Amino acid sequence: MISQNPVFIPGPTNMPEALRRAVDIPTIDHRSAEFGRILHPALEGVKKVLKTKDAQVFVFPSTGTGGWETAISNTLSAGDKVLAARNGMFSHRWIDMCQRHNLDVTIVETPWGEGIPADRFEEILSADKGHEIRVVLATHNETATGVKSDIAAVRRALDAAGHPALLFVDGVSSIGSMDFRMDEWGVDIAVTGSQKGFMLPPGLAITAFSPKAMAAVESARLPRTFFDIRDMASGYARNGYPYTPPVGLINGLNESCKLLLAEGIDNVFARHRRIAEGVRKAVHAWGMELCAARPELYSDSVSAIKFPAGFDGNRFVSHAMDQYQVAFGTGLGEVAGKVFRIGHLGSLTDAMALLAISVAEMCLADMDLPVQLGSGVAAAQEHYRQTAGAALRKAA
Amino acid sequence: MISQNPVFIPGPTNMPEALRRAVDIPTIDHRSAEFGRILHPALEGVKKVLKTKDAQVFVFPSTGTGGWETAISNTLSAGDKVLAARNGMFSHRWIDMCQRHNLDVTIVETPWGEGIPADRFEEILSADKGHEIRVVLATHNETATGVKSDIAAVRRALDAAGHPALLFVDGVSSIGSMDFRMDEWGVDIAVTGSQKGFMLPPGLAITAFSPKAMAAVESARLPRTFFDIRDMASGYARNGYPYTPPVGLINGLNESCKLLLAEGIDNVFARHRRIAEGVRKAVHAWGMELCAARPELYSDSVSAIKFPAGFDGNRFVSHAMDQYQVAFGTGLGEVAGKVFRIGHLGSLTDAMALLAISVAEMCLADMDLPVQLGSGVAAAQEHYRQTAGAALRKAA
Amino acid sequence: MISQNPVFIPGPTNMPEALRRAVDIPTIDHRSAEFGRILHPALEGVKKVLKTKDAQVFVFPSTGTGGWETAISNTLSAGDKVLAARNGMFSHRWIDMCQRHNLDVTIVETPWGEGIPADRFEEILSADKGHEIRVVLATHNETATGVKSDIAAVRRALDAAGHPALLFVDGVSSIGSMDFRMDEWGVDIAVTGSQKGFMLPPGLAITAFSPKAMAAVESARLPRTFFDIRDMASGYARNGYPYTPPVGLINGLNESCKLLLAEGIDNVFARHRRIAEGVRKAVHAWGMELCAARPELYSDSVSAIKFPAGFDGNRFVSHAMDQYQVAFGTGLGEVAGKVFRIGHLGSLTDAMALLAISVAEMCLADMDLPVQLGSGVAAAQEHYRQTAGAALRKAA
Amino acid sequence: MISQNPVFIPGPTNMPEALRRAVDIPTIDHRSAEFGRILHPALEGVKKVLKTKDAQVFVFPSTGTGGWETAISNTLSAGDKVLAARNGMFSHRWIDMCQRHNLDVTIVETPWGEGIPADRFEEILSADKGHEIRVVLATHNETATGVKSDIAAVRRALDAAGHPALLFVDGVSSIGSMDFRMDEWGVDIAVTGSQKGFMLPPGLAITAFSPKAMAAVESARLPRTFFDIRDMASGYARNGYPYTPPVGLINGLNESCKLLLAEGIDNVFARHRRIAEGVRKAVHAWGMELCAARPELYSDSVSAIKFPAGFDGNRFVSHAMDQYQVAFGTGLGEVAGKVFRIGHLGSLTDAMALLAISVAEMCLADMDLPVQLGSGVAAAQEHYRQTAGAALRKAA
Repeated sequence: MISQNPVFIPGPTNMPEALRRAVDIPTIDHRSAEFGRILHPALEGVKKVLKTKDAQVFVFPSTGTGGWETAISNTLSAGDKVLAARNGMFSHRWIDMCQRHNLDVTIVETPWGEGIPADRFEEILSADKGHEIRVVLATHNETATGVKSDIAAVRRALDAAGHPALLFVDGVSSIGSMDFRMDEWGVDIAVTGSQKGFMLPPGLAITAFSPKAMAAVESARLPRTFFDIRDMASGYARNGYPYTPPVGLINGLNESCKLLLAEGIDNVFARHRRIAEGVRKAVHAWGMELCAARPELYSDSVSAIKFPAGFDGNRFVSHAMDQYQVAFGTGLGEVAGKVFRIGHLGSLTDAMALLAISVAEMCLADMDLPVQLGSGVAAAQEHYRQTAGAALRKAA
Repeated sequence: MISQNPVFIPGPTNMPEALRRAVDIPTIDHRSAEFGRILHPALEGVKKVLKTKDAQVFVFPSTGTGGWETAISNTLSAGDKVLAARNGMFSHRWIDMCQRHNLDVTIVETPWGEGIPADRFEEILSADKGHEIRVVLATHNETATGVKSDIAAVRRALDAAGHPALLFVDGVSSIGSMDFRMDEWGVDIAVTGSQKGFMLPPGLAITAFSPKAMAAVESARLPRTFFDIRDMASGYARNGYPYTPPVGLINGLNESCKLLLAEGIDNVFARHRRIAEGVRKAVHAWGMELCAARPELYSDSVSAIKFPAGFDGNRFVSHAMDQYQVAFGTGLGEVAGKVFRIGHLGSLTDAMALLAISVAEMCLADMDLPVQLGSGVAAAQEHYRQTAGAALRKAA
Repeated sequence: MISQNPVFIPGPTNMPEALRRAVDIPTIDHRSAEFGRILHPALEGVKKVLKTKDAQVFVFPSTGTGGWETAISNTLSAGDKVLAARNGMFSHRWIDMCQRHNLDVTIVETPWGEGIPADRFEEILSADKGHEIRVVLATHNETATGVKSDIAAVRRALDAAGHPALLFVDGVSSIGSMDFRMDEWGVDIAVTGSQKGFMLPPGLAITAFSPKAMAAVESARLPRTFFDIRDMASGYARNGYPYTPPVGLINGLNESCKLLLAEGIDNVFARHRRIAEGVRKAVHAWGMELCAARPELYSDSVSAIKFPAGFDGNRFVSHAMDQYQVAFGTGLGEVAGKVFRIGHLGSLTDAMALLAISVAEMCLADMDLPVQLGSGVAAAQEHYRQTAGAALRKAA
Repeated sequence: MISQNPVFIPGPTNMPEALRRAVDIPTIDHRSAEFGRILHPALEGVKKVLKTKDAQVFVFPSTGTGGWETAISNTLSAGDKVLAARNGMFSHRWIDMCQRHNLDVTIVETPWGEGIPADRFEEILSADKGHEIRVVLATHNETATGVKSDIAAVRRALDAAGHPALLFVDGVSSIGSMDFRMDEWGVDIAVTGSQKGFMLPPGLAITAFSPKAMAAVESARLPRTFFDIRDMASGYARNGYPYTPPVGLINGLNESCKLLLAEGIDNVFARHRRIAEGVRKAVHAWGMELCAARPELYSDSVSAIKFPAGFDGNRFVSHAMDQYQVAFGTGLGEVAGKVFRIGHLGSLTDAMALLAISVAEMCLADMDLPVQLGSGVAAAQEHYRQTAGAALRKAA
């Protein structure tokens, strides 16, 4: 029989019915005025979700990876220097992209499970007297390890060093789910995709450029056409697009922003924290540990849970799918086989989180790990019971 | 934020995406040949689900209640005698309908929580030497109490009494979910709706008439037009319908039968039993009892769970909805305030059942009942773990 | 290849995407407060579409035929007298239903193509000194012949005769498409279905009872349970329903009323008239005639077009489907083989009407009728061109 | 009221319901085996549509423009020479992209309305004794002018010159609608998008690389990451993707190929030709001319129709939308204001084409052009009537 179980991968998320419908619309003429009536509110909505007044938003038929390429190819030239920490699969990939584009990357190798070492960044930036470093790359939420980095601290490092480098932030698995403040944190380019906090199908790279980032565009020499924001900007100015726009996804983005802003973006963050906290209480009740080294690093959109040392966890995710038709995230890169991940972002309820915890608990027991059935569920239930009323009172 | 939680009312059920799509089709010309290509396979599919070779199936834009009216108005005349047990809300309503149609109902009052007393039926039928009783009504699964009656035993009672009465069975909440054998049990009219075992939206009354029931149609004097199966039969014979057919729902019924028969109808029953058994183990772990008096009466499509004596359970269902956005069934009629119900029929997985159990557990604790968090979940998990593999092995 | 052609049967109509989505919703708990929030606005919306302040609306999972049965079974008893004209298939069927329910029908046989003879009604009613006639039945729009009757004239006949009979109107193919005024015309029961002017899938009988009709309910002796409006009324009073409600269709009805009322119900009527007039101009350009005898009888929801005398038109509809994948309506009853019908109700544009006219024109030519290609299209184009601007100016 | 009119822009096309549903699916785990079961049949299907055995297909979340960038960035290095004709907006844009990527483009300026001058190509290639030209770019169907170029002739030019350059073909508005033979014509890279012949929403760049093109990948020095086919190929090899795949669109692509191949790809081409021919007959009946200079250049997916000299046609498209809610294509670039376009590709019937012709005819008359109402329709009707039977006979 067909399974109707929700998914618990760290994106793409479960999609609200309203957003699936907003995406699945009949063909309209994208050269008619109708398109502008969809596009511009979507761009404005994204600005509010990002908490920016000054940035310009550009939306491409692509993915977060395309968003990264948009960021670097529109602002940099071959040989330019950038600074980045490598503390997980996605920071690794962004570094790799820079190297393929012939950028000169200063890499701060950082243990997987740790966040961006802002103090080390400050040292490096302070030492860069000639201000050769053009850009600092920061992955806000490492999806592979469930680690949230402190972007405000990275900004403070730049400021303390008196360094003019641009700050580019990969917010793919944080934006729309976890506290993000583009203007307050001085983010110059923010990058995300449609399939995480926006709860849409994959297919959009969503980027925002600060005025300072915009100022870098003309002098950038990396070749780009598809991802050229100048074409995108001139298209938007005439209610158009430089090529055929993904109208349905943009319409979905518009509706998604409406949903998030109607709930209140800070309420959305609080909801994710509340649900994530229940998952974490379950993990602790199991006697297990998160990949994230310390509580302040815990991600509210995904938890990477460490198997006991020496245990081979590679079968976990396929077992959960085969036996219970529930999708969890597998370990990636350095932590392959060492962790499994529960995605808890997007459209999710505490009831759905309890489903995930129940099934994970069964799988752990199935694999002969010393986990007591019902223990994680009970810990999460206690948390959800105590906070459900508060959440309702706050919302009222 | 929008809830995406499944529902756990005893119907309408959660609907598989494939069936929602089968129902939601563009307008076709219902007088064209296309309609026949949808209708006839649906009728044939229903016959297989009912395990009948001989019966004729008639499908009305209506509900189970309309199916009951179809049964009686096509076979009986004012003053005719029928025999029925009243052991729950739905048997009560059918009796009430008969009385409104001026039938003479012999009512066997039966405690709510008990099944049809086949032995008492046998006594009454044996005593009816003149064979004045024209029809025996039997509610296979009392949705209000979660009680399954033994239809084979009712048939045996008729046979033991050598009585020619017709046997009409309300299978609204059993057919498609629980063992049902129209021909083997000698059922003369079976009645169900689209929104239970068939996992469709409400809107169809589905009935099947044995040859013996068909033989009673011409002499029946109760007035009927909308529910007249003679018009329906002559419509079907020319690939048509006596009025505008609900094409989408009939297309959905066709697809639903395909899904059920592809899984294997006995596998469908086993799946419901397996999921129901997990729910029952949770109930017992909570120290609570089912409304159904004995294990052989336990329904596999709905569990009615008794609150402790003196406890006012009227708030339970609204609390679950307000606090956790999960829908359970409330108590009806005699057991209002005394039970709550978990529907576990239709498109359901063990993971979804664990969601229901987790949330019910929180609600019980919220209402200060002495239920240990995680206890019911653990009991169900143990059952699902042990049987998940078996289910998979069987399916393979 | 799949056809995406619209249909031109006189109902079910082409459905707007927004209404298909309103119908196709996930399962909700119909015993929760949510259902009331869907039901009551739908009932209020129907009242506005019907232009009634005083009537009570009842909506059944059924069809227009079920609506007729609701009307008679809730107000009449076996042997009661009713008056009706037979001037087409649908008035014929309603009369037949009355006879099956043992009512005593005075039938005014009327040529197909003519409307209800209000003057003849006045004579009969005036002659009924004892006021034995309890109900006058009137089919507002004969779908089989494309004939609109004058309901205001029927009311005047009743009033002129000083007769207290109830006036029941079948508005299945007029309500929501053509001028209908329940209170002004003194209609006591109005009946329609979901699949015509409301542009929904079939599956709802929609009825409205005036206070005078409500007063007749208690004394009515015809048996009814499924269609008993007393159960329906008491269900509505507690935000419920007497059995499982077709939640999706009722939600669709709510949205449909919103669409119709947002456009302005009189604008909806004008739109239908404008589109119908284009079709009629095409018919005249072809040198053909409508089944409706005179212009004041022309229906704005369906045109029945007469083939030349002696021509066998039975193949027309299947030819259009086989050759061009377009659905027209066939002739029914007395006019089978003598007419074909173009349905032009519901969600339709002048562009879509031109598609229908173009294809009908090809079919007529294919069948060697002396119709000049392009002639009907040109006549309709001229009409649509001249009125499109006016329609826009009015709407602005 | 809501319009349900189809669109007649030259893509995105009207989408079959089945394909919208194939795209709009719930979230699945794209790292599970399920994804491979969607991806690989889609890739195989595209190969069949392209008529290639040897090429490798790569599908990106992007558009046709991204497909062009995939082609050049994976095979070329800054300074490389390419040869192209500029005969419309889309060939112009591809040339522009090459220049932005620092390629050295030999441009054969060609009148808009003409096809690629294969003889001129042959001269240039023959003169390139050192074989410095690495790639010949060819736009198969110029969407802006409705001009089809002869790709086989370009191949012959290469062969006649004995030149080893790669042949890249933009088939965005031809593939899946018009005769295309990747292997037979020796095409090295074919590029298209999801929103034209595949009848899907926009959002996919679909590319195919011949073995000879694959051989050029390693030595190419243009930077690329998002569009790097090496990452894509290694992803496919493990049933994966280098980033989050647009699962719904890929599922849609799979279903689209199934639809096209079930109809027979040559039957699909014939259907487009038949419908296009009707449009062209209407144009000639209006006394107007196509932008395409000669019949052998006529595109079967889009017709660009020239306004009389001196007439300002800029209002045409907005007039059609405002007055009749029908979308046509506007003139682009050099032919802006001088032509309007009727897109006739994708999911289209002759009935729908007649709708387009009828409405275009009204608009021309509204703008006081000397077009007789019904004249174009009649010419198209005559063509469709005569060929409808043949089409059916062939299909049977």
